[in-house]
Amino acid sequence: MPKSNCSDCTCRLANEVGQLKAIVNAQSKTLAKLVRQMREGCKKDEEPKECTLCGLNPCLKCLQPDILYHLGLDTETTDFPKVFGDVRFVCMGGTPGRMENFAYYVMQEIGLKINAATKLRDMAEAGKRFSLFKVGPVLCASHGMGCPSISILLHELIKMMYHAKCKDPVFIRIGTCGGIGVDPGTVVISSEAVDGRLNPAHEILVHGISVQHASQLDEGLADEIKMCHDPDKDNFETVIGRTLCAHDFYEGQSRLDGAFCEYTLENKQTYLEQLQSQQVKNIEMESLAFAALTSRANIRGAVVCVAILNRLNGDQIKTPHEILAKWEKRPQELVARYIRKTLYFNENDSLSEEPEDETDKRASQGAAGDTQKAPAEEAE
Amino acid sequence: MPKSNCSDCTCRLANEVGQLKAIVNAQSKTLAKLVRQMREGCKKDEEPKECTLCGLNPCLKCLQPDILYHLGLDTETTDFPKVFGDVRFVCMGGTPGRMENFAYYVMQEIGLKINAATKLRDMAEAGKRFSLFKVGPVLCASHGMGCPSISILLHELIKMMYHAKCKDPVFIRIGTCGGIGVDPGTVVISSEAVDGRLNPAHEILVHGISVQHASQLDEGLADEIKMCHDPDKDNFETVIGRTLCAHDFYEGQSRLDGAFCEYTLENKQTYLEQLQSQQVKNIEMESLAFAALTSRANIRGAVVCVAILNRLNGDQIKTPHEILAKWEKRPQELVARYIRKTLYFNENDSLSEEPEDETDKRASQGAAGDTQKAPAEEAE
Repeated sequence: MPKSNCSDCTCRLANEVGQLKAIVNAQSKTLAKLVRQMREGCKKDEEPKECTLCGLNPCLKCLQPDILYHLGLDTETTDFPKVFGDVRFVCMGGTPGRMENFAYYVMQEIGLKINAATKLRDMAEAGKRFSLFKVGPVLCASHGMGCPSISILLHELIKMMYHAKCKDPVFIRIGTCGGIGVDPGTVVISSEAVDGRLNPAHEILVHGISVQHASQLDEGLADEIKMCHDPDKDNFETVIGRTLCAHDFYEGQSRLDGAFCEYTLENKQTYLEQLQSQQVKNIEMESLAFAALTSRANIRGAVVCVAILNRLNGDQIKTPHEILAKWEKRPQELVARYIRKTLYFNENDSLSEEPEDETDKRASQGAAGDTQKAPAEEAE
Repeated sequence: MPKSNCSDCTCRLANEVGQLKAIVNAQSKTLAKLVRQMREGCKKDEEPKECTLCGLNPCLKCLQPDILYHLGLDTETTDFPKVFGDVRFVCMGGTPGRMENFAYYVMQEIGLKINAATKLRDMAEAGKRFSLFKVGPVLCASHGMGCPSISILLHELIKMMYHAKCKDPVFIRIGTCGGIGVDPGTVVISSEAVDGRLNPAHEILVHGISVQHASQLDEGLADEIKMCHDPDKDNFETVIGRTLCAHDFYEGQSRLDGAFCEYTLENKQTYLEQLQSQQVKNIEMESLAFAALTSRANIRGAVVCVAILNRLNGDQIKTPHEILAKWEKRPQELVARYIRKTLYFNENDSLSEEPEDETDKRASQGAAGDTQKAPAEEAE
């Protein structure tokens, strides 16, 4: 056997040994990780899971059953931990149709599938007030218009999180707004919500006495969602700024086109310019209650709205329906990217990384199965 | 000819003459009335019809077109006087489904019909926020939950009345509420709306400054609707009283079953008993904005709600769905009777009296035809 051949053979063998050792090492790490996860899993099963929310009504545990009247759900006929226990993201927006569309969109974006013979069911249909769709770990709800309406939804969704023992759910409102000094089509992520006097608090009357709750939003979450904006790909701007929450659409927002208007164009311009000088980027109608109720429960919350006009230039919304529909998708795109990133990339765990063939592999995993299961269970 | 026969004959002739004179007199009155009505009609055609509302935004006439964004309607693509000019009653309630049912119910009650091949169309479908059905002179709209939501609807409906040149429209909210010291199932007609401090005013922030508008309701209208209750036939009570309008369902109404609750059962009982001692009969969430906006426009307004529980006895709504559905019909029944009575009996005009064979005759009149026409016109 020539010397060179023997040397080649030795080299090949040495390479193979090196590769095999690398594989064994990698497998050992994976095995150790799996064993650790299994142990943690068993430990979790031993210790009853508890809800991570804070500051809730101490009487909630006494409500047997608890009736979430406006969602048409109760803890007696629905097994909340089983049906809603996996929820990690609660997304809400004004209209039922928009939230149903968002549910299908986010399903696609996070690679979940439902059985071709089924469709997403409005789980709050019996309540006749809100719509509620569940896509694996994402809950999508409509909240109507104004703080009183969203406050009813939030009270009942927070109670749902409590009864279902959800861990660190993130709440995000996606919607439309009037911009202040921003181009129509711009996405505004709220740094905080303020009232018409620029006070960052939501006032409620309890027993006739004014109680103010701070309307802070989660700065880190706002930044994370903003980072999902891709300046190279997205043909729109995304900004972070203060959001004024009004309690009506016309006079409370200084519009000149309401049924009543007891001020002048000059009064309006002065007020809107004052808002702009105070870093207010947009006006909408739900952020105060959203921010106050989520922060009271120690829930990370964000408000992501697209401006459908620049209020410094007018009041009436004259943009064609097709363009409005495109703009309305922008907050949905950013939030779906954030959810996808959080689910598949953010955790220091190689097992939660996004599969190479995303849709097929994820569709065959448990999460997609869960989504398939929920309607079937309810239909029985 | 015997004398007695001649006398009989004279008597019969005298009687006939008397009867004929009475008929001629009656016919003369009817003819005079018809001539007067025709003259007034011609005069009306000569003088352009004007809206009877007061205190409206002076700039409304400059809005060409005016876009009622949340109703998905505008004055350019819809001929408001033609489509909505005949509206005399605007009824509103919380959910789209309830208002669609009410529209069909009121159609039956006032004897209108639509073509068997058609159904009522949601005329606000394009707006995606509210539902809107039209049955001859009756408009039925859903308003969502809370004052901000109903205020958007009212601004746009009042603008609609203005553009359509409607004459003296009556606005009625029908809904559900929590009763204070009244049996569940009782219908409460509001004498006035008060806030959580029992102040009869709706506060809005305009340019950051608090503006209060009196939240008075029309006493005469409340009485007229109450008179439609038939103690012999209706197996429920109808009362008139003050209505507390809260801006949230849980803490603002002193419920113990919200996600948050920072007061005790004793605090709650004290507050509710204080309300009862001040003649508050019920709590709901829209009457302040409803009363303030209708009275600002000089529109006669009424709030008619059924109590679905007595808040002195509890917070959660445990009544079975079938019973709630029956109770929800009660305000609808009273209001439909009021509309029917106003349309066919209230006016001092024999021509507007209810026909003997109600349904058939009315169905063949113009009003029913109008109802048939509207969808067909829109469908073109």
